[in-house]
Amino acid sequence: MQRTTKHLDVVTAIRRPGLLKTLAVVLGIGLGATATGALAQNPFIQAQPISESLEPARLHADQQSEVAKHLKELEARTGRKPNVLIMLVDDMGWGDPGAFGGGIAIGAPTPHIDNMARAGLKLTSTYAQPTCTPTRSAMMTGRLPARTGLTRPTLTGERVLVNPWESEKTAAGLLSEAGYMTALSGKWHLGEADGGQPHQVGYDEYLGILSVVSEFTQGLDPRRYPELTLNPERMAALHQVSHPAVTAGLKGEALKVITELDSLEKVAEIDQQFATYSEDFIHRAVQAKKPFYLVHSFSRVHNDNFPAKAFTGKSPARTPYKDAVIEVDDIVGRLLTKLKEEGVADNTLVFFTSDNGANEDAWPDAGFQPWRGGKGTTWEGGVRVPGIAYWPGMIESGRESDELFDLMDLFNTSLTLGGVNVPTDRYIDGVDQSSFLLANNGQSNREAVFMYSERNFTALRWNEFKVHFKVFQTPVPGSNIDESMLIGTGMSPWVYNLYLDPKEMKSVGHRTFEWGLPNILNLVTRHMASYRQYPMKELGLAKPVQ
Amino acid sequence: MQRTTKHLDVVTAIRRPGLLKTLAVVLGIGLGATATGALAQNPFIQAQPISESLEPARLHADQQSEVAKHLKELEARTGRKPNVLIMLVDDMGWGDPGAFGGGIAIGAPTPHIDNMARAGLKLTSTYAQPTCTPTRSAMMTGRLPARTGLTRPTLTGERVLVNPWESEKTAAGLLSEAGYMTALSGKWHLGEADGGQPHQVGYDEYLGILSVVSEFTQGLDPRRYPELTLNPERMAALHQVSHPAVTAGLKGEALKVITELDSLEKVAEIDQQFATYSEDFIHRAVQAKKPFYLVHSFSRVHNDNFPAKAFTGKSPARTPYKDAVIEVDDIVGRLLTKLKEEGVADNTLVFFTSDNGANEDAWPDAGFQPWRGGKGTTWEGGVRVPGIAYWPGMIESGRESDELFDLMDLFNTSLTLGGVNVPTDRYIDGVDQSSFLLANNGQSNREAVFMYSERNFTALRWNEFKVHFKVFQTPVPGSNIDESMLIGTGMSPWVYNLYLDPKEMKSVGHRTFEWGLPNILNLVTRHMASYRQYPMKELGLAKPVQ
Repeated sequence: MQRTTKHLDVVTAIRRPGLLKTLAVVLGIGLGATATGALAQNPFIQAQPISESLEPARLHADQQSEVAKHLKELEARTGRKPNVLIMLVDDMGWGDPGAFGGGIAIGAPTPHIDNMARAGLKLTSTYAQPTCTPTRSAMMTGRLPARTGLTRPTLTGERVLVNPWESEKTAAGLLSEAGYMTALSGKWHLGEADGGQPHQVGYDEYLGILSVVSEFTQGLDPRRYPELTLNPERMAALHQVSHPAVTAGLKGEALKVITELDSLEKVAEIDQQFATYSEDFIHRAVQAKKPFYLVHSFSRVHNDNFPAKAFTGKSPARTPYKDAVIEVDDIVGRLLTKLKEEGVADNTLVFFTSDNGANEDAWPDAGFQPWRGGKGTTWEGGVRVPGIAYWPGMIESGRESDELFDLMDLFNTSLTLGGVNVPTDRYIDGVDQSSFLLANNGQSNREAVFMYSERNFTALRWNEFKVHFKVFQTPVPGSNIDESMLIGTGMSPWVYNLYLDPKEMKSVGHRTFEWGLPNILNLVTRHMASYRQYPMKELGLAKPVQ
Repeated sequence: MQRTTKHLDVVTAIRRPGLLKTLAVVLGIGLGATATGALAQNPFIQAQPISESLEPARLHADQQSEVAKHLKELEARTGRKPNVLIMLVDDMGWGDPGAFGGGIAIGAPTPHIDNMARAGLKLTSTYAQPTCTPTRSAMMTGRLPARTGLTRPTLTGERVLVNPWESEKTAAGLLSEAGYMTALSGKWHLGEADGGQPHQVGYDEYLGILSVVSEFTQGLDPRRYPELTLNPERMAALHQVSHPAVTAGLKGEALKVITELDSLEKVAEIDQQFATYSEDFIHRAVQAKKPFYLVHSFSRVHNDNFPAKAFTGKSPARTPYKDAVIEVDDIVGRLLTKLKEEGVADNTLVFFTSDNGANEDAWPDAGFQPWRGGKGTTWEGGVRVPGIAYWPGMIESGRESDELFDLMDLFNTSLTLGGVNVPTDRYIDGVDQSSFLLANNGQSNREAVFMYSERNFTALRWNEFKVHFKVFQTPVPGSNIDESMLIGTGMSPWVYNLYLDPKEMKSVGHRTFEWGLPNILNLVTRHMASYRQYPMKELGLAKPVQ
């Protein structure tokens, strides 16, 4: 059968309309002016088209109306829309929290995260993008990185020809317009230049770091990076593009420096600063009697970790990474306590997650996941992250689900809670998951998770299957973002049954998946067709897009 | 430094006393007539010598007396010694239960096991031997397989020159003498010949299978094994050595056939039979007002799994292995319910575990673990198994510990609960862990876990470190018991920090472990010296011991 070679590179197909037509003929499906209607009758694909600019979704009318009723009752009782608190850890592995098999077994107990999982909804199939910037941008805009142009981590001092934020809308901005108080606390890493700072793209306020902590620590650590710190010219070059500081901003005002990060001791304490700021923000929002949307974005556990003084040596493992996990867990506890103290715990959706898988390249300053691969790849180790939704009184205690949740879905879900419609003038890849998270037996509204490496479509997850069109190969085991290569052959797609083979060791495509492959290819075709009307964005990044 | 090459093969050293002396000189320790006293002053080794024939243990006087007091109070209240129920699953991976990171994430929820873990003590560093027979024999005798001779799975129809059981004592036998009712329910696999059956080596009664389920299923499955089932001569040869049946026996009586297993449908139901038998045994023991010791030994989830009718397709994954996990979990729930119904839940130590890691060779009819390697190896994947101790009212709810527990310790621990002293006429490698399991903040009494492949000492776990003297290499990934080779080089020992590197990817011996290696070598020397007075047993197995 010629199927595999013909459909190898669906991105190429989109760029070459002739090939797309061929693909359509081979698949035996119609590709009309809109792709959304094409697959409605497929018995294996449950997602229904909603509109041209919206990702098709699995619609569950019962759970939708159940949740709408609960939310209405809650609003009547509290007099306002519910709050949203997203806790986003940096580079934490799926397996780091105890609730996901790590914790004490790997030298860092996480009692607060575990309690949250037990008292809320533990989501074992939560997906991020394979790196930092793509995940954060997707989570905040509801759009795939290929559409916003934020397809890879922005680099220190890098200039782009197009400011991606000029034409993007964030959940923070939309909720702010609807009366929410919105804030970003902690790491941004979505553009440092004027016009791309958090308080310029929708957040009412911000306190944190604009880039990534490793940019600061490299210049401060002569024991690890003597070739940089002991070379004045290189240090000057670094400081020309990077100003190590905790900064803050208010909507309409200029960025301010709060703390110059001129020592490792100061860097070590920044997550404490962010936590204090988040606590204060929650307090102020409650005082103002306004609903709030807060993204608490940890600098931890991204390398290089330098433990805060109070946490140094506090993990059983007594290493910087594990101490940082302990600190993250402690802050999770602090923020949950703050919600209780302020009397808004029962009116706040809390979502705990990580921006991508553990960065094995930074080992031993790195996390743990039972999967194959790590940060930078679309093996499960790169994109499958811990996910916990917590909302006492609204989310039933002790729930767990392996159904699909993409962090992009937080965009739609947050807007739904705020009573705000998603934009219709652009393609939204996120799906409203409020009924999945909040209904007592809620099922996921997402059909599939599409995975990319920059602008290369590489893989998708559908039911328990992971289908790779291109894969990452690492010449050195455990070396991913620095050394792996993206490859594809005529034998793709490769299909893994993640229930039987969670480590993605053995493709079963031709053994048991003949029934499923046509559906996968249909889904991919429909997905790719969306780029015709809503194309990828070019930012003029220095690194050419393959 | 010459250290590594000199100490490569400590088993060889034992066989050649001259080399052992050299080792002692290099290590700078004395090797007197007894090895037990040699290391008492080492600040990094907490285990204290107890007697020549007992494994040195970490002694915690406080927790010991706390637990002795609680047990005395309980006995005063109930009028009898506590019961012991060991639930031993076959070939279940560490990561299979939800409480250990699996469950719904891999297509088989395990609510009863998870509840047990939450309501009891979850032990994340529980160790078995790398295969079936060795683990079972060690658990029942408190002695390493090298000492009992049961160093590898007994093979169908294999004859040994020496019956290992003639000179061994089981916990079942010792407790039976002390007034317990004792039973083995389910898989035995510790010798089928006369003189080596469960009711002949200490158990008052038995119902189960003497060998292993794959022996039966192979002869019944023409779809998978046509070259056997469609060949009458081969089938005759199989039946000459193997009688597929559920059998039963009472102490002093002959073995009886209960069910001829002449169809896959019957094989599929055997775990239901075992569960019913265990329930009945518990009922009878309670009626007889006697304490009981019951080893409930699942035939599941060893390949080839054929799901019981009631469980076929009941797992989300809808495969035989996952359905079998669901069945195991259901039976766990049944047995715990039975304890409650009979009013003995608060007087019974329940221990849930597996006899070795998942058998990757049997994939896709195999389990999951986040570790390296699988059944047959002494990588963590072969020997680290789920462990849960559960005892409402005695073990505090919600405890978890990463300290060491070796399944051999169940021998000593069970005897302690029964008020029976361990034998002093042989070396006992197990350690009494009653105070670890039962004291509210109990710490492990075990210093290290020594790992073997047959009679080759290969590795040990000490604190968070895993030290390999010989390792397993698999030419084909995921192929362990069938294809891996045991190798060692002058570069061993290899040291892995399991907190930072739970997948055993990168040895850190020469990077951060210079302080620890001398202690490791001291422990190994002390361990090996025990063989001088208590030598390895030779059974005359057909397969030569390396």
